This record gives sequence, C-alpha cells and structure tokens, in this order.
Amino acid sequence: MAASTVRTYGFGRADEATHPDSIRATLAEFLSTFVFVFAAEGSILSLDKLYWDHAAHVGTNTPGGLVLVALAHAFALFAAVSAAINVSGGHVNPAVTFGALIGGRISAIRAIYYWIAQLLGAILACLLLRLSTNGMRPVGFSLASGVKAHNGLVLEIILTFGLVYVVYSTLIDPKRGSLGIIGPLAVGLIVGANILMGGPFSGASMNPARAFGPALVGWRWDDHWIYWVGPFIGGALAAFIYEFMVIPTEPPAHHTHQPLAPEDF
Amino acid sequence: MAASTVRTYGFGRADEATHPDSIRATLAEFLSTFVFVFAAEGSILSLDKLYWDHAAHVGTNTPGGLVLVALAHAFALFAAVSAAINVSGGHVNPAVTFGALIGGRISAIRAIYYWIAQLLGAILACLLLRLSTNGMRPVGFSLASGVKAHNGLVLEIILTFGLVYVVYSTLIDPKRGSLGIIGPLAVGLIVGANILMGGPFSGASMNPARAFGPALVGWRWDDHWIYWVGPFIGGALAAFIYEFMVIPTEPPAHHTHQPLAPEDF
Amino acid sequence: MAASTVRTYGFGRADEATHPDSIRATLAEFLSTFVFVFAAEGSILSLDKLYWDHAAHVGTNTPGGLVLVALAHAFALFAAVSAAINVSGGHVNPAVTFGALIGGRISAIRAIYYWIAQLLGAILACLLLRLSTNGMRPVGFSLASGVKAHNGLVLEIILTFGLVYVVYSTLIDPKRGSLGIIGPLAVGLIVGANILMGGPFSGASMNPARAFGPALVGWRWDDHWIYWVGPFIGGALAAFIYEFMVIPTEPPAHHTHQPLAPEDF
Amino acid sequence: MAASTVRTYGFGRADEATHPDSIRATLAEFLSTFVFVFAAEGSILSLDKLYWDHAAHVGTNTPGGLVLVALAHAFALFAAVSAAINVSGGHVNPAVTFGALIGGRISAIRAIYYWIAQLLGAILACLLLRLSTNGMRPVGFSLASGVKAHNGLVLEIILTFGLVYVVYSTLIDPKRGSLGIIGPLAVGLIVGANILMGGPFSGASMNPARAFGPALVGWRWDDHWIYWVGPFIGGALAAFIYEFMVIPTEPPAHHTHQPLAPEDF
Repeated sequence: MAASTVRTYGFGRADEATHPDSIRATLAEFLSTFVFVFAAEGSILSLDKLYWDHAAHVGTNTPGGLVLVALAHAFALFAAVSAAINVSGGHVNPAVTFGALIGGRISAIRAIYYWIAQLLGAILACLLLRLSTNGMRPVGFSLASGVKAHNGLVLEIILTFGLVYVVYSTLIDPKRGSLGIIGPLAVGLIVGANILMGGPFSGASMNPARAFGPALVGWRWDDHWIYWVGPFIGGALAAFIYEFMVIPTEPPAHHTHQPLAPEDF
Repeated sequence: MAASTVRTYGFGRADEATHPDSIRATLAEFLSTFVFVFAAEGSILSLDKLYWDHAAHVGTNTPGGLVLVALAHAFALFAAVSAAINVSGGHVNPAVTFGALIGGRISAIRAIYYWIAQLLGAILACLLLRLSTNGMRPVGFSLASGVKAHNGLVLEIILTFGLVYVVYSTLIDPKRGSLGIIGPLAVGLIVGANILMGGPFSGASMNPARAFGPALVGWRWDDHWIYWVGPFIGGALAAFIYEFMVIPTEPPAHHTHQPLAPEDF
Repeated sequence: MAASTVRTYGFGRADEATHPDSIRATLAEFLSTFVFVFAAEGSILSLDKLYWDHAAHVGTNTPGGLVLVALAHAFALFAAVSAAINVSGGHVNPAVTFGALIGGRISAIRAIYYWIAQLLGAILACLLLRLSTNGMRPVGFSLASGVKAHNGLVLEIILTFGLVYVVYSTLIDPKRGSLGIIGPLAVGLIVGANILMGGPFSGASMNPARAFGPALVGWRWDDHWIYWVGPFIGGALAAFIYEFMVIPTEPPAHHTHQPLAPEDF
Repeated sequence: MAASTVRTYGFGRADEATHPDSIRATLAEFLSTFVFVFAAEGSILSLDKLYWDHAAHVGTNTPGGLVLVALAHAFALFAAVSAAINVSGGHVNPAVTFGALIGGRISAIRAIYYWIAQLLGAILACLLLRLSTNGMRPVGFSLASGVKAHNGLVLEIILTFGLVYVVYSTLIDPKRGSLGIIGPLAVGLIVGANILMGGPFSGASMNPARAFGPALVGWRWDDHWIYWVGPFIGGALAAFIYEFMVIPTEPPAHHTHQPLAPEDF
C-alpha cells in the first residue's frame, strides 16, 4: 500500500452508495459516534448530578471536574476510533471527515454518508441520555463569560487544527507505518489535552457532531455556529498543510538517528 | 488465521472439559477477574477510608473521587485483559463471554467454565478485601437516588453495549490485525469513560461478576438483577450487530485513505 | 525464540559477572529504578509541598492527592520499564526479579546484581530528592491507622501478586507475542490501579527498592519488614502459578474466537 | 537498519539546508511544538480561568490542578511526538535535540534548524493563546518560594535526564525494535510523572522552548536561565550515558527470560 500511486479506489459513486463496504463503514461511523457522544456528553451530566446530589459549595467548574470531563472524552474517543478504524477509517467527527475530503483521501459521497451517520449517532446518544438519566437536559457547548465570539472561533480553529494534524499524521498518512498502531490513542489523548486547555473558554468541542446532538436534543443554540465553522476551518487547514507540505516524498527515517561520522559536525 | 473458513476448533465438548488448554484458560479468567475486582472494588473502599480518616466536609461523591474509581477500573481491567488474552481471550466479564457466545466465537461449555471462574475470582477478591482492610464491607452497586429501575436498566444496557462493541472490534474480529495490540487498552479505557459517565447514576458496572462478588460478600442485593440483565442484553446486542452487520466480508482498507483521482469528486 | 527448548543462556556464572551485557543490564536497572523512584517518591513530596505552601483545610489524603500519586507511579514505572526492557528485561523492582528467579527465568547471580542496582538507584533518587527540594525528608511507606500488620502484609502480598502476574504474562511469557509491545504499559497501569486501591491502607509499595530508598534516606523504619516480606511472597506466588500452571504447552489462540459450527452448541 | 555500521547519512551540510526532507522535518518540529505548547501552556491559563471565574477559596495549586496540568502536558506531548516522529524524529524539545546531537545522532546544522523551529512554534502558540483567551498573559516557569536557584537547577537537570533517557532508549536506540511503537507514549507519560513530582518546586519544564515562548510573550524572565541550562545539562548527560554505556553491542534478549537448566542456580 505504501507509495502506491495506482488508484485502488475502484468503483464509482453510484456503486459506492449501495456497496456493502460503504454501508458497513457508514454503520461503523454511526455506532462509534454514538458510543463516544454517550460517554462524552454523559460525563457532563454526570458532573452535574454529583453536584446536585451533594450540594457542594464549589461550582461545577473545578480542576477535578475538568479532568473528569477531559478523561471521559479522551478515553471514549480512543475506543470509538479503534472500534471503527478498520471499517471506516475511524473518523467519528465531521471535521476529520472534512479534512480527509480536503486532502483527497475520501470521496465527497462517502463524506456525506459519514456526516449523516455521525450526526445521527450523536442525536441518538443524546436521546438515550435523557432516557437513562431520568430526563436530564443535554448541555452541549457555549462560550464562557468573558470569551468573545472571535476568541472562541480562533480557539476552536486551533484546537481542531491540532486534532486533525494528529489524525492525519498517525492514521491517514500512507507512510505512518507502525505509528498507526498507537494512532487512535494519540487522537484520543490530544482531544483530552485540548479539553484541559480549552474547556473553560469554549468547551473545546472540535467536533460538530459532538456539539450538534446536545444542541438539538437540549435545544440550546447559543454560539452554535462557532462549533461548525471553527472545526471545519481548523480541520481543512491541518489537512492541507499535512497533505501538501509535510507528507514526505520518500521515507526520511535514514536521515535521522544514525551515527554520524565526525566530519558531519 | 484471517479469513479462515475451516473450523480449527477441533475437539468435542467432552474433550474440552478436561483438555489442558481449557483448564488453563479457565484459570486465567479466574486470576484476571480476581486481580481486576480486587483493585476495582478496592478503590471504592479506598475512597471510603480516605473520607472516614479525614472527616472531609464533602461527601464521597466528588469529581476527584469519581476519577479515582474510574481510573482504578480502567487501568486494572486493561492489565487483567492483557494478562489473560493469549490464554483465554481476555474476557474477565460474563457479559463479554455472553457476547462471544452469541456471536458464535466460543462454545457453550467454555462459556459456562468462564462464568464460573469469573464469579469465583470476584468472590475471592471481595473476601480478601475484607481480610486486608481489617473488615470493611464491600459496597458493590445500586441505583442512585432519583434513578428509577428502568433508567438504570437502560443505562447498563447502553454502557455494556459500548464495552462489548469495543471488545468485539478490537479483540474478537478476525480482521482486527494490528488493532489487537492496543485492544486491551481500548477495552480498559472505554470502561473508564463509561464509569465517568454512569457512575453517579447506576455505578456503571457493565460486568455481572464485578457486581456479584461484592453483593455476596457484602450481602447487599438491592437492584442486583439490573446488573445481570442489563449487561447481558447490552453485550448480546453489541455482539449481534458487530458479528452480523459490521464484520466486513473483505478487508475494506483500500477504500479509505487512498489518494483519489479528480474525477471522483 | 518462541517454543525454544534449547538453552541459549550460554555462559557460566564467572563469565556473567564480567560480561559486558551483564554490566549494561545492571546499569539499566540502576538508571531505570533511579528515574522511577525519583518521580514516585518525589510525587509524595510534591503533594506535601502543595499543602504546606497553601495551608489547605483538607489534609493530604484526598482523592485528588491519591490520583496524583498513583499517576506519577504508573506513568514513571511505564517509562522506566520501557527504557530498560531491551537491555535488562525491565524489572525495576526486586520482587519482579525474585519472581523471575523463582520461575527460572534469570540466574541467581544476575538477580543479585539487579537487586543491588535497584537498591542503589532508589537510594540515589532519595538523596537527590533532598538536594533538589531544599532538604525535604523522604516519606516512604508505613501502615495507616486502623491497619494491622497482618492486614498490611496480606495487602502487599495480593497487590504484588497482581503486579508480578501482569509482568509475567505480558513481559516474560515466551508466548506473549505482540502483547509484549504494550506489556510495559500494563505493568505501569496495574501499579497505578493498585495504588488507587491500597494507598490509604498500606501505601501499596509492591516494591522493596521503592520502600527501602526513602526508609534509609528519611530514616523511617516502622513496619518496614512488611514491604520486603509481602512483595517477595506475592511475587513468588505469581511467578510460580504463572510459570507452572498458566503458560500453555501450545498456542491456544485457535481455540478461542473462531466461528463454530452449529453442532458445537 | 539495525546493527548498520555503514553511514547512510549521505548528503553534506550545504545540501541538507535546502533538501526537501530537511525542510519538511523542520516544519514538522515547528508544528508539533506549536500543538504541544498551545495545550500545555494553555492548560495553565485554563486553570487560572477556572479559579478567576468561580472564586474558589483554595488557590490554584491543588492536587487536582496539578493533575490537570500534568495530564495536559503528557497527552499533548505524546500526540505531538507521534505526529512528528516519522518526519523529524519527534524531538519537540531543544534539550532532546541537544541530546541527539551529543550522541552523534543528528548533525549540528539540523539541530540548529530544529531549535529555531521549536522556538518559533512555542512563540506562535503563546501569541495565539493571547488571541484566543481574550488577552490572558502567559505564565511560563519560575521557582516556587522556598526553592533556591541551585535546587531548581538540580531538579531541572534530573527531570530532563529522565526524559531524555526515555527518549533515547525508546525512540533513538537503533535496537529499540517494537519498543518504538509505544516510545512516544513513554515520552509523554514520563513528562507527566515528572511534572507531578516537580511542578510545585520548579514547574518541571524540561524543555527550553516550552519555557521560552511564555517568557517572551508574557515577558517574565525571572530564573529563566535555569530552564535552559538545566535541561541542556540533563539531556546531554542522558545522551552520553545511554549512547556510550547502555547501548548494547549485541542484542541481549536471549540472556534474559529464558528457562534455565538447574545447574545455573
């Protein structure tokens, strides 16, 4: 597969729509996004319930609460990407799918399939969260006080840039080699790190499906456009830079970490 | 092994009962479940002791406490699954065994062996917890206030669905390939994420042996049926969907992440 | 290497003592134990400093504090085992070395070399901790109030059993295969989980070198024998059970996770 | 590549400066350092914002806060190293680059390229942090009260020694084998562990670029020299010891973990 220049993507758009592999890939995106969003959005409801039940003096926004939410997202995304990677490529995020589209790694029709599946998975997760938490209203994302729209937009662009850059280098780059084995973990944990950074500002969504499900089921639309525009710009930027500037034309491994003769210094 | 259609499972039920490999696999399930439940249930006693010793004003149900319990479960399960995977398949959970049975991946007699081993491992862990904590009573699982039986049942179904879906895709799917290397970690961490979500509602057991050991040794049976019925339904559902709908008939890798020619857009 | 029955361990004891590989392996154990103990014991001093500087009302024994200490141990041990594994086998713990000796996986003379190196590494780490923290006295391990000697001994036996069982299955078992890749992580994280369980009772040392360094440098010897006897019994037990009861005589992989014909049910 | 004694580093300094692979590697270092520093320094601003918004009684230096910061650094560095490793070797840290230079693994000109890229990436991250947090001033590193300059210097030396020792053994050692797969994770997590240890004393930077970006953008230069001198000494020491004392002349794997005949005891 490495360094292949022959197109192996050998069926057209009409075939793709009904090809069993397309259907399975779409199903895998639906299920993995469901599993991810259920744990991720659910961790925010979990935090709310801890405070409601125990009337703690401090609010929900403590370091411990942010660690809880970040780990839930990181761990669940890692597992969800792992579960889907062999079937669909493990996007679990419309911004990742957009990046793969920008880089020419998937077709437009497959991207549309994935987007629909990701949104439906997130919506189902939020509906079942209401059912299993006895009616708690999903929270989703909005900007914290003191964070203006352009701050939040820049933040979502940068955080998603980091995520999609990691996705591209560890999961999509055809020369990733054994790096692909830990790729899903790198993807999960960069999301965790970025939430620890961005949580108190914009919430650090980096994922329009993750934001859309709770917005629809909880009917909260404040600042919602930021959680589409930001991740799409950031994802496209990362895909463009990685695809056209970073992917090496030949394996560079032998240029690094080899003993040098003295005259090289 | 991949794409093998020949049955390599070549000895009958009577042989299996006394075959050295069956005995070793059963022993591995017993020991790994013991190691997992000792750390997992023990982390709850650990949290109790922290508060009893130090009379903290806040209750046990804080974000930091939930992170503590979730990490103990996640880390211990990852290690326990790793330790058993080459010998028994690394189930460490009757609901996972039930899923593998539903999917036709193990025989009924082996499933029964595993279930007995898992329950005995969990019971021994809880007995030794009493001994090593100077008599603390295991806590196990029950529904939080405000969570009705049907809420808790749906929650355990969904959380176990997520767990067994990840198990199936990363550890059982014959086409998992190198994904199997990080499979045990994905399994451990999805349990961690699901506990961060479901802990304040149902406790997020997802594992009948994990729930049964403390219930028996601590003699607490409230809502106990939920922790059997929920995980078995969730595990069966995940196995059925993955086995019959997601497992691809041929490796789909070449349909994703390949450069496309312009006419594909 | 797998299924090799020929002894490849081909030089005698006298040679081994001066063989370059023995010296390098011993050095690797010294350095990895140093790196591990510096971060691990240092995390306890770090926690102390947080409270001394900020006069928090709650004591040092909070869930957040225990998570901090457990993660420092888990992460540092994972890295230290990884760093040493190709050179020395990555023991970083006299109880692991004792287990490998019981199982016949290393020679007695090499075990003695490792033990000396591990103890010296731990002592140096504690001396340099005093230097870099402006004289803080290492804390080490002792039993919490309410925990009797036999409770603590049983606890250290069980926790070390779990650790060495994971070490044996993922790092020593000649049939571990690709499991060895994530073995160091499983070893680090089971230590993290066991600390989250046992921290408030015995401290969950599981490692005589980890306990001895602070005891010597901080001159605190209460209950110190428990942190030698417990880990050595637990490690020996795990090695004996794994070596002689769990290691399969032939790869059992084809007995699990294969599609079954209907007549098997 | 293993055991290669032939120089494969086959182009001179003038070529290297304009060789596409050098440019790509430098770009990869710039981008990965940017992604890392944005999340890492950002996590400190995130913690500040949590307290400013919620007027918590306790200060920012709590166990939960330190766990938050350590996880953000650990997770982001793991992802950043993974993203760059196939292109540049994944240094993301001038002290790592210095260690690779000391060990003769990269040329001086490439080291200079990397250093410039790493510093620029860190500066850009801090500038964009100001933009996306509505003007918060980066914090960076300084010594805590009670920590004298020589304490802090020794601490940064030791912590960086541990980091570069792990980098060398898992990412640079030509005999690392499959260890390289989890190497980036070991690198990320040893940084996490070392921050949990050193955070309350020196901040545990271990990375001059990580320290320089916030110092420049936030214009705080107290104790700044320590964050250059310490990491460079520690990194050089680790590289020297590993390169010339630990790297084995032949694979030692067959000396460990093999069954021994009785006469070996």
